[in-house]
Amino acid sequence: MRIGVYPGSFDPVTYGHLDVIQRAANLFDKLIVAISRHTSKTPLFSLEERRAMLKEVLAPYPNVAVDIYEGLTVNYVRRQGGQAIVRGLRAISDFEYEFTMALTNKKLAPEIETIFLMTEARYSFLSSSLIKEVAALKGCLADFVPPPVEAMLRAKFR
Amino acid sequence: MRIGVYPGSFDPVTYGHLDVIQRAANLFDKLIVAISRHTSKTPLFSLEERRAMLKEVLAPYPNVAVDIYEGLTVNYVRRQGGQAIVRGLRAISDFEYEFTMALTNKKLAPEIETIFLMTEARYSFLSSSLIKEVAALKGCLADFVPPPVEAMLRAKFR
Amino acid sequence: MRIGVYPGSFDPVTYGHLDVIQRAANLFDKLIVAISRHTSKTPLFSLEERRAMLKEVLAPYPNVAVDIYEGLTVNYVRRQGGQAIVRGLRAISDFEYEFTMALTNKKLAPEIETIFLMTEARYSFLSSSLIKEVAALKGCLADFVPPPVEAMLRAKFR
Amino acid sequence: MRIGVYPGSFDPVTYGHLDVIQRAANLFDKLIVAISRHTSKTPLFSLEERRAMLKEVLAPYPNVAVDIYEGLTVNYVRRQGGQAIVRGLRAISDFEYEFTMALTNKKLAPEIETIFLMTEARYSFLSSSLIKEVAALKGCLADFVPPPVEAMLRAKFR
Amino acid sequence: MRIGVYPGSFDPVTYGHLDVIQRAANLFDKLIVAISRHTSKTPLFSLEERRAMLKEVLAPYPNVAVDIYEGLTVNYVRRQGGQAIVRGLRAISDFEYEFTMALTNKKLAPEIETIFLMTEARYSFLSSSLIKEVAALKGCLADFVPPPVEAMLRAKFR
Amino acid sequence: MRIGVYPGSFDPVTYGHLDVIQRAANLFDKLIVAISRHTSKTPLFSLEERRAMLKEVLAPYPNVAVDIYEGLTVNYVRRQGGQAIVRGLRAISDFEYEFTMALTNKKLAPEIETIFLMTEARYSFLSSSLIKEVAALKGCLADFVPPPVEAMLRAKFR
Repeated sequence: MRIGVYPGSFDPVTYGHLDVIQRAANLFDKLIVAISRHTSKTPLFSLEERRAMLKEVLAPYPNVAVDIYEGLTVNYVRRQGGQAIVRGLRAISDFEYEFTMALTNKKLAPEIETIFLMTEARYSFLSSSLIKEVAALKGCLADFVPPPVEAMLRAKFR
Repeated sequence: MRIGVYPGSFDPVTYGHLDVIQRAANLFDKLIVAISRHTSKTPLFSLEERRAMLKEVLAPYPNVAVDIYEGLTVNYVRRQGGQAIVRGLRAISDFEYEFTMALTNKKLAPEIETIFLMTEARYSFLSSSLIKEVAALKGCLADFVPPPVEAMLRAKFR
Repeated sequence: MRIGVYPGSFDPVTYGHLDVIQRAANLFDKLIVAISRHTSKTPLFSLEERRAMLKEVLAPYPNVAVDIYEGLTVNYVRRQGGQAIVRGLRAISDFEYEFTMALTNKKLAPEIETIFLMTEARYSFLSSSLIKEVAALKGCLADFVPPPVEAMLRAKFR
Repeated sequence: MRIGVYPGSFDPVTYGHLDVIQRAANLFDKLIVAISRHTSKTPLFSLEERRAMLKEVLAPYPNVAVDIYEGLTVNYVRRQGGQAIVRGLRAISDFEYEFTMALTNKKLAPEIETIFLMTEARYSFLSSSLIKEVAALKGCLADFVPPPVEAMLRAKFR
Repeated sequence: MRIGVYPGSFDPVTYGHLDVIQRAANLFDKLIVAISRHTSKTPLFSLEERRAMLKEVLAPYPNVAVDIYEGLTVNYVRRQGGQAIVRGLRAISDFEYEFTMALTNKKLAPEIETIFLMTEARYSFLSSSLIKEVAALKGCLADFVPPPVEAMLRAKFR
Repeated sequence: MRIGVYPGSFDPVTYGHLDVIQRAANLFDKLIVAISRHTSKTPLFSLEERRAMLKEVLAPYPNVAVDIYEGLTVNYVRRQGGQAIVRGLRAISDFEYEFTMALTNKKLAPEIETIFLMTEARYSFLSSSLIKEVAALKGCLADFVPPPVEAMLRAKFR
């Protein structure tokens, strides 16, 4: 069984993440969307809120699981019996961060691959940080996140 | 009447910003240099100091106004009756930030354009952050900011 | 009267070009879509075919004209009484080419601005060269070019 | 059965390609290394020479096949019953080309994914074109290509 | 006598830094590895710890000195009688930061050059920040830093 | 004695090249400006014309020699007893080409360094190819090349 892990902070999950998840779900027998406990920025949503949010929007995908992990990503992937880390790549990504991470992970765990999927062009500008700024300033969120996430963002900034 | 808005933090205004303002002033009937209340970093100069600084150096340009705004940039542009957001693009810009912002603004307000002007080559390395570092370390500022801004920077770090 | 010039080879015109033209048409009183006689590659369509193609798809825009020019772009813009050169910028553009061109033109004609507009995200991958390759291999072109251009491409590769 | 296709010109195959093939072979039940008949540059090695070269160096990988194809890559992948196109991404890749191609292929065949694998850091500078230049100038090739390919390159430039 | 200065925070020194030092030591009569007192982030190791660490790993290089400085880098280079600032450039560098810094320094001290050396490909992904993250999460550090630094990192996160 | 080699096609030499040569001349006891016989494009000026052009504009620099070479650049540098290859880096360089070349050369000759110097900001847009296009279209060349080169360009396109 081929297992892929899509790690991230998902604070919150966007249509860009969902696009990557949908594609990756077709490439693996099981895909685990894994929320990291370690984040450089203070998250807006708690780990539990993010898990609930992901579970709701990912309900239609039978081979996609949601989990929370701590420690090195590669160790988590090993414990799950996974073969690959999945990352979305946008035309305007932070390549430095993505490539440094991928090559460091390769050194730490040579048997685990990082595979990059291109986010669909029309989602290439979506960024969780910018979406939080737009939400804080009461802008329209319908093009950026699915309805349940939009409701949770509205609630946070009411 | 064509109105352009050049938003930023201008903390402080540099010769690079002035180059963009001078060019944009030729493309619009009215150009509003708009200081955003929202900034990720704690600014060195207060909003009022930045407004005064901009008013002084922009006095020679009759069709350029200076303003402070809060909330979404696109909403401010709409309230002013503007058609475009102006941004300077340097050869060594943070493209990820600029393009993500431009495409997000396009989604929020499809009727408003973001137009990018190339900063002149000799100003392409100017960065407000680096100028503040140089000022803090008592370096020469004459090539980076106009004299009144230089005086204000000197005063801050005396 | 503000006049903008959008130069290019348009071999053939794509939905990405049309997106830029539509936006630029809102920023100027008159926009000239100007086909350059000089091109590094041998074009697929003749100058006259490209002019006819552009005239057909741009018929709905009353303030957009189509023209053919030779010599330096800045000299053409001067002869037309224009103030600005318009260029589309894709997240995955050839920045080196665009910026070198813009800064060289600024030296040749300091009074003419180059303004960059972001192509809409969903058109950010469109390239005339790749479209010609797809056409040569009989791929579907409906997402890339308007119907009259599709017909002309089909005819070329029949 | 999951089938991946790794298309390219492989003129000649380098240690960088072999690194990608080895990794991709772990992610799919079957991996097809597919030599495209269409290339913008005149190849140094004939299609048959490249097929022979790949067969020799890929003999140790039981789930890797070598093939030659023509027409659109996505149509070839469909005919083979494949789910994904595999591409190597180097830190210093031609991203514009790779992303334009991936997003165009997504439009032509939404059911087929392009997955990018990072070439190992120490192979990140390998380029078939540069290797041919080095071979033409009688430079040492041992770090760039496997021994049978080195012998074939030497023979070409004797 | 030609003197070069390699400034940085070295928090901690990595195999990537050592690669640059080794190369630069061949280009100058004397190379000063200079630890800056000013850093945007709170360092993990104290200035003295970093000096000791560098002295230990650089002991084999007779023409390399270790120092701590404050104030503008260019002023420090002048006081040392140096001609050049040395920087490592990785394929996945933060070019915006490096180039802005180099061009600003050129304005502040036109007689001092910044020279960039390419980090060897297999070290191109090494980043002090990521190494600290890996250390905090108890990952293996042997590929990233020399043994004495590894020991000091382990001690910090025990 | 430290010897540096600055290889290129110099077709023609620009103010950007001269800026790099002037800087590099301060870093080495002897700098050899070396014209390569191998060029991917058909040159506008013959090898002898380029040698004469360089000799004329470099006359004021006593430690700069001009030469023509063939074969691998690293072999030429070895034969000259050089320690380093010098390359100019512009903010808008073709990094892929420069880095691939530098890392390939490092493999071919580990004892020879490639050092990159930043071209001064105001020359960052200069490109020999674009200058030839401007000359062909009778544009003003005074900002791009020194007077003797301007005269030679005018003569070519008369």
